[in-house]
Amino acid sequence: MPVFLDNAATSFPKPETVYQAMDAALREVGVAPGRGGYRQSLAAARIVYEARSALARFFGVSDSSRLIFTHSATESINIAVNGLLKPGDHVVSTRVEHNALLRPLHLAATRGVEVSYVASDRFGVVSEREIERALRPDTRLVALAHCSNVTGAVQPIEAIARLARQRGALLLVDAAQSAGFFPIDVERIGIDLLAAPGHKGLYGPPGTGVLAIADGLKLEPLMVGGTGGSASSPEQPDQLPERLESGTINTPAIAGLKAGVDFLLSTGLEAIRAREELLVGELLEGLRATPGVEVYGPLQGERGAAVSFNAAGHDPAALSYLFDSQYEISVRAGLHCAPDAHRSIGTYPAGTVRVSPGFFNTEADIEFFLKALHEILAGR
Amino acid sequence: MPVFLDNAATSFPKPETVYQAMDAALREVGVAPGRGGYRQSLAAARIVYEARSALARFFGVSDSSRLIFTHSATESINIAVNGLLKPGDHVVSTRVEHNALLRPLHLAATRGVEVSYVASDRFGVVSEREIERALRPDTRLVALAHCSNVTGAVQPIEAIARLARQRGALLLVDAAQSAGFFPIDVERIGIDLLAAPGHKGLYGPPGTGVLAIADGLKLEPLMVGGTGGSASSPEQPDQLPERLESGTINTPAIAGLKAGVDFLLSTGLEAIRAREELLVGELLEGLRATPGVEVYGPLQGERGAAVSFNAAGHDPAALSYLFDSQYEISVRAGLHCAPDAHRSIGTYPAGTVRVSPGFFNTEADIEFFLKALHEILAGR
Repeated sequence: MPVFLDNAATSFPKPETVYQAMDAALREVGVAPGRGGYRQSLAAARIVYEARSALARFFGVSDSSRLIFTHSATESINIAVNGLLKPGDHVVSTRVEHNALLRPLHLAATRGVEVSYVASDRFGVVSEREIERALRPDTRLVALAHCSNVTGAVQPIEAIARLARQRGALLLVDAAQSAGFFPIDVERIGIDLLAAPGHKGLYGPPGTGVLAIADGLKLEPLMVGGTGGSASSPEQPDQLPERLESGTINTPAIAGLKAGVDFLLSTGLEAIRAREELLVGELLEGLRATPGVEVYGPLQGERGAAVSFNAAGHDPAALSYLFDSQYEISVRAGLHCAPDAHRSIGTYPAGTVRVSPGFFNTEADIEFFLKALHEILAGR
Repeated sequence: MPVFLDNAATSFPKPETVYQAMDAALREVGVAPGRGGYRQSLAAARIVYEARSALARFFGVSDSSRLIFTHSATESINIAVNGLLKPGDHVVSTRVEHNALLRPLHLAATRGVEVSYVASDRFGVVSEREIERALRPDTRLVALAHCSNVTGAVQPIEAIARLARQRGALLLVDAAQSAGFFPIDVERIGIDLLAAPGHKGLYGPPGTGVLAIADGLKLEPLMVGGTGGSASSPEQPDQLPERLESGTINTPAIAGLKAGVDFLLSTGLEAIRAREELLVGELLEGLRATPGVEVYGPLQGERGAAVSFNAAGHDPAALSYLFDSQYEISVRAGLHCAPDAHRSIGTYPAGTVRVSPGFFNTEADIEFFLKALHEILAGR
């Protein structure tokens, strides 16, 4: 029986209802919303509207038109960074970011935006005091991941949000590893831009993502084109969500995302988190008790479900290959698209082996993984 | 029995194999390609590689790494226009474009690009002589749709490609209405950038698109982020396809697109085109024989499958509503996201009723549509 422990890349499997909702939408609706007034197109529009409402409620966005559908968290972040920043703006970010945020910031820097990167501690955690020190009167944006895909470290988003607000800066949160894991109420916390993938903790399919945008914040679109309505002007329309959603909307995938969020809500975020915390706790305990193994990231307290480790004398890629080839266990080796995070925790350039359990894993999966690790390290 | 006649918006239904391929990829593979070295991730990478190879062959692209997966033709066009043009560049386009091209060009114009728009004749056809007249020594790009989504007019792409090449300009073709309908061999014709949706004539699902890029043409990426490999630099990698494909690739949708292209190849482009030409011919004949009906676009010869008409004394939106509510026939009314095309054929701002048959329509569907039209016009 294969054991999938790479949920930080994408959650797998999805709830059965996600597969069914996608197949039904493809077979029965299948057309573009807002591109025709006939019943099938209205049915597509209803699916998208209901999904938008459900996700807006889930993230505490009071007006669902400010919840934009994208195709990935990467697209959401690119829309936010490109749509907001102008030459001369100052941004505060961190030295533990994923390339999904790091590269858009780096690109913005080539266009005259100045970015200060704040260091983390050796567990990958960034303190709000370091963020505070980096804030300047001209800081337009604080941009960081809520939770690391390498270390599982969780950043103090609420304290950072308060700081940003006090200093007149906006806050962009990359929730790739936290959406569907920690409760995120963007308006209560004061997150101005929240980027989340649909295919990780929200249990939707690949090809989905969302961007939540604070009231009154106008972004320049990254892409422009057909928006169904408002067709007569060569200018992209001002109103949301159309302004930031050009081209045919991916209705079947959004139907799947809606089913994923419904699964999440009916199961309960608390129950999902409790299960994942149990599995992560057993994983951490087992890894720490294994001689020659070094575990990175927070060892206790609040953390995400990505656990990175190395075993003395073993290349992470070779280890990961053995897990797959000998035990059908899927874990991931390398830099996980977050080179700075590895520089921060001292694992650059070989990276780590990353194990990321999900809701559908069992304690038996973790035991099997640990047994496999012990056998591999014993050279059996 | 509902009759779907809005295939210019999206082809519906899809071949059964498309539904099956997507469901299988979601259930059995479901993970991201290039994000792990384990078997499931390699299986995802294989799906994407095979789809890329099949599409590259289909469009005559000799190196499949120059065939980029996007989420829509709109995204493909935005990548092309934004990635290529610099302030001071001159572009030649036409007055019959869809907003998917018109709006990116309009946005480029606000950033210092100059665009000349060439008029069409009253059928929506642009002559290569008009294009030639608009070309200047500093023209960097000629950009136009191969086939109109409003009139079905087909532009003389091969002649325009020769002209562009002679004058040292590049050619961007929006193949939203022609990919999967007319053979398009980009290297033979000399198309430098080909943008196509996956969910129309290629029979794939929504959320898919491609951009074919000529050898040696380097585009600045519209979006940057994680690319799986080449993770250590904050710079987006130079090599294709990674340079233009950031974030988790939508493997299940690409599996569906591959199944769509396989359907196309096994059925044969000629057979598909013959069927659609038969249906369009009957449609045109029936419409022209109906008193009070004006048909737009080319009435004979090579044309696409989108047929626009108006009936004297009838608002197109009201007509379209009656087709849906009384007959369960899906047609589309309005501007179809192409306001300039309507200005060119004299149907702005109310637009037209658009009927667009697809391969899965039958002659009985066209007869039923014409019978419904006659009943509506007779006030029955």
